[in-house]
Amino acid sequence: MDLLRMMDGLSHGLADLSMFPYFDMAHYIVSMMALREQPGALDVSRASPLACWFSSMLYCFGGAVLSGIMLAEPAVAPLSNSPTILLASIVWYLIFYCPMDVVYSCAALLPLRLLLSGMKEVTRTWKVLGGVTLAQNKYKDSLLVMIAIGWARGAGGGLISNFEQLVRGVWRPETNELLNMSYPTKITLIGAVLFALQQTHYLPLHKHHLMLIYTIFIVVNKTRMMLTGSSASPFASIESVLYKTLFSGHSPYAALTGDFKTPCSGNSSTGGKTSRLTTKESSENRDRGCSLKAKDESENTETADDKKSN
Amino acid sequence: MDLLRMMDGLSHGLADLSMFPYFDMAHYIVSMMALREQPGALDVSRASPLACWFSSMLYCFGGAVLSGIMLAEPAVAPLSNSPTILLASIVWYLIFYCPMDVVYSCAALLPLRLLLSGMKEVTRTWKVLGGVTLAQNKYKDSLLVMIAIGWARGAGGGLISNFEQLVRGVWRPETNELLNMSYPTKITLIGAVLFALQQTHYLPLHKHHLMLIYTIFIVVNKTRMMLTGSSASPFASIESVLYKTLFSGHSPYAALTGDFKTPCSGNSSTGGKTSRLTTKESSENRDRGCSLKAKDESENTETADDKKSN
Amino acid sequence: MDLLRMMDGLSHGLADLSMFPYFDMAHYIVSMMALREQPGALDVSRASPLACWFSSMLYCFGGAVLSGIMLAEPAVAPLSNSPTILLASIVWYLIFYCPMDVVYSCAALLPLRLLLSGMKEVTRTWKVLGGVTLAQNKYKDSLLVMIAIGWARGAGGGLISNFEQLVRGVWRPETNELLNMSYPTKITLIGAVLFALQQTHYLPLHKHHLMLIYTIFIVVNKTRMMLTGSSASPFASIESVLYKTLFSGHSPYAALTGDFKTPCSGNSSTGGKTSRLTTKESSENRDRGCSLKAKDESENTETADDKKSN
Repeated sequence: MDLLRMMDGLSHGLADLSMFPYFDMAHYIVSMMALREQPGALDVSRASPLACWFSSMLYCFGGAVLSGIMLAEPAVAPLSNSPTILLASIVWYLIFYCPMDVVYSCAALLPLRLLLSGMKEVTRTWKVLGGVTLAQNKYKDSLLVMIAIGWARGAGGGLISNFEQLVRGVWRPETNELLNMSYPTKITLIGAVLFALQQTHYLPLHKHHLMLIYTIFIVVNKTRMMLTGSSASPFASIESVLYKTLFSGHSPYAALTGDFKTPCSGNSSTGGKTSRLTTKESSENRDRGCSLKAKDESENTETADDKKSN
Repeated sequence: MDLLRMMDGLSHGLADLSMFPYFDMAHYIVSMMALREQPGALDVSRASPLACWFSSMLYCFGGAVLSGIMLAEPAVAPLSNSPTILLASIVWYLIFYCPMDVVYSCAALLPLRLLLSGMKEVTRTWKVLGGVTLAQNKYKDSLLVMIAIGWARGAGGGLISNFEQLVRGVWRPETNELLNMSYPTKITLIGAVLFALQQTHYLPLHKHHLMLIYTIFIVVNKTRMMLTGSSASPFASIESVLYKTLFSGHSPYAALTGDFKTPCSGNSSTGGKTSRLTTKESSENRDRGCSLKAKDESENTETADDKKSN
Repeated sequence: MDLLRMMDGLSHGLADLSMFPYFDMAHYIVSMMALREQPGALDVSRASPLACWFSSMLYCFGGAVLSGIMLAEPAVAPLSNSPTILLASIVWYLIFYCPMDVVYSCAALLPLRLLLSGMKEVTRTWKVLGGVTLAQNKYKDSLLVMIAIGWARGAGGGLISNFEQLVRGVWRPETNELLNMSYPTKITLIGAVLFALQQTHYLPLHKHHLMLIYTIFIVVNKTRMMLTGSSASPFASIESVLYKTLFSGHSPYAALTGDFKTPCSGNSSTGGKTSRLTTKESSENRDRGCSLKAKDESENTETADDKKSN
């Protein structure tokens, strides 16, 4: 009884929490550290501060830009919010150009990085919910639109990463967040589905309760992943079962490939009709994709939560 | 007299025809079969069902998305139409993941494929006309906008194919539907011009008569092309004359290159000023374009109406 | 006193000047000559007149299209302005397909090209001011949005050049106008900042005075650059000082790299942390970027103001 009442109070407190400025700042810091740890990003910050700034803004406000384009609302809208842009620009400057690199070095210390990453995850809840609510105002009861906008808001930086990279002169067409979904993109999609179901009353939960549960889950999970250095998704087994049930229907060799998380090794065994249709080019693409992926994974073991801190 | 009255009745009947659900379903089936026959598409459907679904939706609703972006209307609008999205998703699932591959195998049988392709062509008339009318509501009497939106609606999947391929991890910058226009894109452009002229009363025809004539033409032509396996455009000679009259003005070697359908072989003979400006890179691009094109054509002879069934 | 009154009269006269048709025509001619001098563009004009036309329209109206997308206004809007589109299309036809190449040969004569380029620069003032005013109507007092839209309007063709090239089958991800800003893009950005400051009354100048000063500056500067064949930016020294003050904070080897205009040579000396993060791929990208840049520069010495006449 007391526990329930405490939970209720806690969830109300959380729902009334303001993201600006502390949580937003944590989001900017963690995002820009992730950008800075991208291969070649430091060179770009030297060669063209403007490209670096624009790329950083896409990392921080990519969700707002993407959902703006999807809903035919001005893509420049985030620029009109002066306090947030100013804050993000100051963070950008300190992370990339601070004398002696003090700010980056401090923020990269594990305890501080843990705290900041946790705070950044909290903003995810607000962004997803904001997207879902925005979509509901425009498209009453259209579940798919609500999920799409909630997802775009929460994981926009990842979803437009191909174009964000293009700003920095990098082009990796062989991969994107739909082909190789990262953990933050996945968890955001799940959040968008949950909040969309809650808003349309298919999920019998109060909004602030769902916010509390979802926030605790993503913060705890993120912390666990950073501490153990593991990039294993907590949904791997559910995904595997779902995949085997739904998407391994027609192919007689599906049993061979098994898990859809290994498309590289799997492809070599997809003989017959498929290979006949596969041109040399696309197989090259795939090979490049695989070698890149292998490289990414080896990098991940080094830089811990490089890619994951989207 | 009787024939005319019969024609009139037929055209009124056609104009009142509802596309949903049967004709729309044929459109989805044929589009997704074309996607499935793209090199590498089956691998993507195994590796990432979500990328495959998104790619399929771009094949089916690309026209609505593109015309939405051009008119600053929400790009997510097609998602809000639940029945059509549901129908398209069911078709997508059955084409890609049906146990024993029953659905694809059946639909690939020539008689059924002929029927479905014919029905899909019928939807083209509705889409083009829908686009033209939509543009007319926004931009009174602006012929160019009406043609652009009608074209985008009817051939959107082809026009955005570079970005649809990007979803699947494929990037072919050396070609696009403006550089190498395929038959469906061409016939849609002609339809958009005709309907725009009709709507602005430059073409003295009733709307339902034009719909009947255009529909019969595209269905008959599509059937003929599928049966003979020829990809020759019925407008080749008109195009050639138009091209020679209008676009071979300044170059003294235009007579050598002759037909603009062979830019690959033609380029080698474009000496003088052009070759001086052509860098190594762009010639590589062109070479790749040519070899790709040659490959495409050799594929086309195999998979009959792979690319054409856009 | 008399000089001041004359200046005032001149600036009022300039502010009342109509861009259509003469100045607009000069803008179209210079833009399309710049397009024609791009490597491979003449081949495209032979292979696909439609792709060439679309590419030309992006060169001429790229600013309107880009600012339209950023403000969620219809991207097709420029098409609805029949007189300007008609004029641009006639210019396009004459530049690319005129018998005996009369029009291009004449316009390429230095005195005429000087005059046309000067007139084109005048349109820049109007475009930047138009963008700034448009943004101010939507976002009162948001300086950043006003700068962004003014810049996009005035230098849109350059900013979307990656996608304009894609229309012609060329893809150069390793460079863009944010990474390697060209002179027209830079001067437009400065203009957008000045006009935004003037409109928000931070800059104590009358609008027509600023228009006169800015116009004279860009016309004189453009003429000087064309006559001397130099591509040196007049702001090089200011940029260098600004860069050294603001953006060389953390790196201990910043003194070695010195000028941010030489990222190619500079990168090789960025050892330590940076090189650890730099993958083979991105270094390849950079190398390609450098060799391309070297090539561009060697081309520039040949075709004088090829790239600069954006």
